[in-house]
Amino acid sequence: MEWKTKITKVESNHLVTKGYRQEDLIGKIPFSHVVYLLLKDELPSDEHGQMMDAILTACVDHGVTPPTAMASRIVASGGVPLPTAVAAGVLSIGDAHGGAIEKGAKFLQEGVLRAQKENKNIDEIAEILVRESREKKQRILGFGHRVHTADPRTKKLFKLAETLGIASEHMALSKSIEKQLEKQTGKKLPINVDGAIAAISSDMGFDWRLGKAFFLIGRVAGLTAHVYEEQTQFKPMRKMFDADVEYDGPEEKNLP
Amino acid sequence: MEWKTKITKVESNHLVTKGYRQEDLIGKIPFSHVVYLLLKDELPSDEHGQMMDAILTACVDHGVTPPTAMASRIVASGGVPLPTAVAAGVLSIGDAHGGAIEKGAKFLQEGVLRAQKENKNIDEIAEILVRESREKKQRILGFGHRVHTADPRTKKLFKLAETLGIASEHMALSKSIEKQLEKQTGKKLPINVDGAIAAISSDMGFDWRLGKAFFLIGRVAGLTAHVYEEQTQFKPMRKMFDADVEYDGPEEKNLP
Amino acid sequence: MEWKTKITKVESNHLVTKGYRQEDLIGKIPFSHVVYLLLKDELPSDEHGQMMDAILTACVDHGVTPPTAMASRIVASGGVPLPTAVAAGVLSIGDAHGGAIEKGAKFLQEGVLRAQKENKNIDEIAEILVRESREKKQRILGFGHRVHTADPRTKKLFKLAETLGIASEHMALSKSIEKQLEKQTGKKLPINVDGAIAAISSDMGFDWRLGKAFFLIGRVAGLTAHVYEEQTQFKPMRKMFDADVEYDGPEEKNLP
Amino acid sequence: MEWKTKITKVESNHLVTKGYRQEDLIGKIPFSHVVYLLLKDELPSDEHGQMMDAILTACVDHGVTPPTAMASRIVASGGVPLPTAVAAGVLSIGDAHGGAIEKGAKFLQEGVLRAQKENKNIDEIAEILVRESREKKQRILGFGHRVHTADPRTKKLFKLAETLGIASEHMALSKSIEKQLEKQTGKKLPINVDGAIAAISSDMGFDWRLGKAFFLIGRVAGLTAHVYEEQTQFKPMRKMFDADVEYDGPEEKNLP
Repeated sequence: MEWKTKITKVESNHLVTKGYRQEDLIGKIPFSHVVYLLLKDELPSDEHGQMMDAILTACVDHGVTPPTAMASRIVASGGVPLPTAVAAGVLSIGDAHGGAIEKGAKFLQEGVLRAQKENKNIDEIAEILVRESREKKQRILGFGHRVHTADPRTKKLFKLAETLGIASEHMALSKSIEKQLEKQTGKKLPINVDGAIAAISSDMGFDWRLGKAFFLIGRVAGLTAHVYEEQTQFKPMRKMFDADVEYDGPEEKNLP
Repeated sequence: MEWKTKITKVESNHLVTKGYRQEDLIGKIPFSHVVYLLLKDELPSDEHGQMMDAILTACVDHGVTPPTAMASRIVASGGVPLPTAVAAGVLSIGDAHGGAIEKGAKFLQEGVLRAQKENKNIDEIAEILVRESREKKQRILGFGHRVHTADPRTKKLFKLAETLGIASEHMALSKSIEKQLEKQTGKKLPINVDGAIAAISSDMGFDWRLGKAFFLIGRVAGLTAHVYEEQTQFKPMRKMFDADVEYDGPEEKNLP
Repeated sequence: MEWKTKITKVESNHLVTKGYRQEDLIGKIPFSHVVYLLLKDELPSDEHGQMMDAILTACVDHGVTPPTAMASRIVASGGVPLPTAVAAGVLSIGDAHGGAIEKGAKFLQEGVLRAQKENKNIDEIAEILVRESREKKQRILGFGHRVHTADPRTKKLFKLAETLGIASEHMALSKSIEKQLEKQTGKKLPINVDGAIAAISSDMGFDWRLGKAFFLIGRVAGLTAHVYEEQTQFKPMRKMFDADVEYDGPEEKNLP
Repeated sequence: MEWKTKITKVESNHLVTKGYRQEDLIGKIPFSHVVYLLLKDELPSDEHGQMMDAILTACVDHGVTPPTAMASRIVASGGVPLPTAVAAGVLSIGDAHGGAIEKGAKFLQEGVLRAQKENKNIDEIAEILVRESREKKQRILGFGHRVHTADPRTKKLFKLAETLGIASEHMALSKSIEKQLEKQTGKKLPINVDGAIAAISSDMGFDWRLGKAFFLIGRVAGLTAHVYEEQTQFKPMRKMFDADVEYDGPEEKNLP
């Protein structure tokens, strides 16, 4: 029943996280680099550190309407402590909200491995992957957005990944898939911010199972701001929205 | 029913957070400074930015035994997605866990205001506050720790606050209370990391109602590492701990 | 570090809850009576059992707009497992949503004790309590509703409490406060369903700290139905509502 | 953007749930039957109603060690409101905890359909399913238990399902799989309480996607009792358990 952990050694007056004394990290290493250390077991290079900062900032907030922010604000409105309301927003991070990072990264990582194995180049494998997905009627995640046609976050993240020398095969595959989607479907489905983070984090060597983690850690900052605004600027149980709801259940009737 | 928000303006291909375009923030402004922007409505000075980084890093992790980490790992062990398990840890941030930042900051901020109003110096007000708390048998939060007698995080944070010129009345009051506690009770109750953050964030001008927010945003990084470790290194539903439990409810009996 | 519990004794092939073997409870004792047993350490009389059933049913659902249902549906919409989404709804049960049961019961229980101590009758103490609350500008919780002027649930619960011989001082005090509120303010603020449960559960001898528990246990059934409907009848990330939001934060500007 | 719901019609002073006025349901229909109504769109027969009661009661509690109870107690220990702590326990209901009801019911329902389609009897299909699962090295869920070899809840639920005339093909398949598991593996893997509920709820005609719902609704009662006991009998942040943890991360080192 012994339990091993690689995260933190706790002794009296002494805390060591992933090999480094916390008193050394505090004030010396930017928080975003500590996040990197926690998720990747090593401190980032300057380039990876800057990229990590960019990824977290890109996830920070998208206004009040996404499930994360809306869940946090509604729960805050019930009159609960700040962490309870922030946690409610985190709960909504799922396969359909933030999940494209995880599934997108998995798809890209498997695609790159397959290209190597089958001795194909990136454009060849992109053509195959898009065709197969269309045949199986499976959506490739990380492309298209409800609001943006040219997401400013995607553009900036990709440019940065290139400048920092991080852009590599996964990003190339992502861009090639974008072209194939347009070619094979006739529709423009631009890489969205989830797709961009999926590609870049894969080029940085992150496990796809951490896909939702980047979104979560960045978004928690925005959710905290939403809950604080709700708690300090609004009354509890205020009417937040109009929902156009119609009851179409069984007709009203007497008990049997 | 109109709803105003100061957080993010969302338009097609255009996102503005607290006045700044997200594409400008991404890759340029460290994530910790964006956190500051979200909670304080302005970008930090270099000094405040570095202090914010230090505060978030100081909250990152304290091993597997605190309620945050333990709740996250136990919930992860039930076989749920990463964000669900991280959120469970966030839920445990309450009056008794992380809460000393909020309540401590409130106490210090009210203390400093009272000193001004009653024309007392910091040491005089500290003596009064400790005496009154003892008379009312109310604990002053942010002093003493289960594991550490000289918390390495506290020491580092205080030193940094001094070096950066942030240390001011709230930190002075905190140190003066520490001395008074020893003088009036005969026991050493050193300022713990919660108390240190309470003092410093107050000196930085933060609302005490954000006390739990710093802990939450920092700790979420550590919780993510815990959930990831649990999901990738251990089997679901493993036995994690020994709980020495005895049933002392009603004697076993037949239904009436 | 020994830990005592009065809830369940767990041995191999043998489970005893509050004194009764689970195999004896299963199929013999209605679930609502088991809830009563868990919260009150004894099986209910027929009258208390029927009242418990009525209270739980009265909490079951109030459509899609309360924070509970809305939080659950929004979180479900992110693409998460059913329990994660149900839990999100539970998180919204707070001081402003369901909280009137807890605070209302505390108020009534303290009121009845004070009447006894100060040798006043119920109407005298009601007059005093309403007057004092108005002087302190404190709202008495459990009166008034956003939608209903004569909540059908309240009426039914009160009638039942009378028929079953449960109605006693707390219910009397609640009704007397309703009259005083109208007399002293000129406005009708009828007892709402939270107020009714506060009064009746107090007459049944329940601790006011369990106030939110009745609401929670009943409402979880409705939330489960909401999450199931969302997951089976709607697409993830659908647009659920119109929120009339305006950004009034800092003007758009360049980074310094 | 219109939104239809079959759950509750909300009008002023008028609430209709699945066709019935709430004032008619309250005090007349047992809560467990209302749960059935919410999940199955009709009131239960007497037999189904009694079975539903039994299923919910069978899920109520299993002491302090399962993830549900432990997560709730640990989160309660952080000093948070009762619903926040109960919700934390709900979050741990996942593929590995309670999930066997969902996956088990799916397996049984698909098995029965396949038997009909392939014109096989129950024992024949059981033999095939166990063999195939062993070949694919997939565990069949709902068999075996950490503590019980003859779970008293299973025995009672199965007996009741027979007495009430509910036991049918899914229960038969479940029992036949139990025999095949012993025959093909040589090991006894008795049907556990999750497996029993999977079988019986399938015989009652419930959608397997509701598998976790029964466990959740029943267990919430037990979790409420745990949180109440923790909040009223223990100090916040008490030491609850011994965890035998060893740090095996990177060696302690200086920053680069």
